Amino acid sequence: MKSGDSTTINVQDGATPKGKGPVPEAPLPSPGGWKKGAAIFDFVLRLGAMVSALAAAAAMGTSDQTLPFFTQFFQFQASYDDLPTFQFFVVAMAIVAGYLVLSLPFSIVCIVRPHSVGPRLLLLVLDTVALTLATAAGAAAAAIVYLAHNGNPNTNWLAICQQFGDFCQKVSGAVVASFVSVVALVTLVVVSAIALRRG
Amino acid sequence: MKSGDSTTINVQDGATPKGKGPVPEAPLPSPGGWKKGAAIFDFVLRLGAMVSALAAAAAMGTSDQTLPFFTQFFQFQASYDDLPTFQFFVVAMAIVAGYLVLSLPFSIVCIVRPHSVGPRLLLLVLDTVALTLATAAGAAAAAIVYLAHNGNPNTNWLAICQQFGDFCQKVSGAVVASFVSVVALVTLVVVSAIALRRG
Repeated sequence: MKSGDSTTINVQDGATPKGKGPVPEAPLPSPGGWKKGAAIFDFVLRLGAMVSALAAAAAMGTSDQTLPFFTQFFQFQASYDDLPTFQFFVVAMAIVAGYLVLSLPFSIVCIVRPHSVGPRLLLLVLDTVALTLATAAGAAAAAIVYLAHNGNPNTNWLAICQQFGDFCQKVSGAVVASFVSVVALVTLVVVSAIALRRG
Repeated sequence: MKSGDSTTINVQDGATPKGKGPVPEAPLPSPGGWKKGAAIFDFVLRLGAMVSALAAAAAMGTSDQTLPFFTQFFQFQASYDDLPTFQFFVVAMAIVAGYLVLSLPFSIVCIVRPHSVGPRLLLLVLDTVALTLATAAGAAAAAIVYLAHNGNPNTNWLAICQQFGDFCQKVSGAVVASFVSVVALVTLVVVSAIALRRG
């Protein structure tokens, strides 16, 4: 009786931290734990995507260069305001970053309740929309940055990066950050889809 | 005994259709039919996305305008070849259209077997990648088309659509077709995600 009592205590001690108590829960933690892992990965990836989207918006929004020489009537200055595509980039990446902040609570719900379908489906649909927005902003800005770097002889559009080197460097960095964000969002959609497989 | 026997028969007759017969099957066709409907919608939408992606690639690929006047050394001509972004557009939309053609058999598998998870998950993941590619191509081309239409005084990039009106019109049409394709792909991802909910 003494040994039986101690055995029972040992089993309960071993079960409580791992499986949350009862024995019928024992087969469940295996898929549940896998889904929990996916949800935690989702949360971390979401944080990363948020940081890079915010960095992209901030880098583009603060890109501004004034050349050290000026004429009597004109001062040479480049800013993201000069190009509508860059304005769209700032707005779109700010929206994506804001959405990713607001989606963090839903991601936490997925960690706490790994088997819930609703929040995961909501996140997948909204992630897809955010992915489209981020990709559009990044690609459009990349097209303009390429033009600023290389110019185009066929249309007589001259490269402006010879004059505004710092501006171009900062803008290119913002585009790279937006692509990091796009890759993270694609991974988020794929992870959500795999985790959704068995509701 | 006679009445008791008839009662037993009545109970069995009543139990067979309710417990093991057609009645428990009755609720099953409902989700199955719902999934089948989603799969058929997926197929139709996929066809539409394919057609618009193909139209976008074809319209851009055949965009070519030669002005009716020329100097001794130079003939004024605009083609999609002049701009790297438009070349990328043609290649990317052709890849997307090709992928959509190859994905049609998998979509048919989803119609035949509405409850299968594998093909649907595969389609969702690949659709997401195709969506990213199509969005990037469409947005980058849109940025350049906007520039061609409006120019940019800050960077001294002049609008070329005054000279090459037909070229600009065709290119703009290709961009619109690519955006139709993007909307169809977003809907495809959402439909796949909803249909995946209960494997």
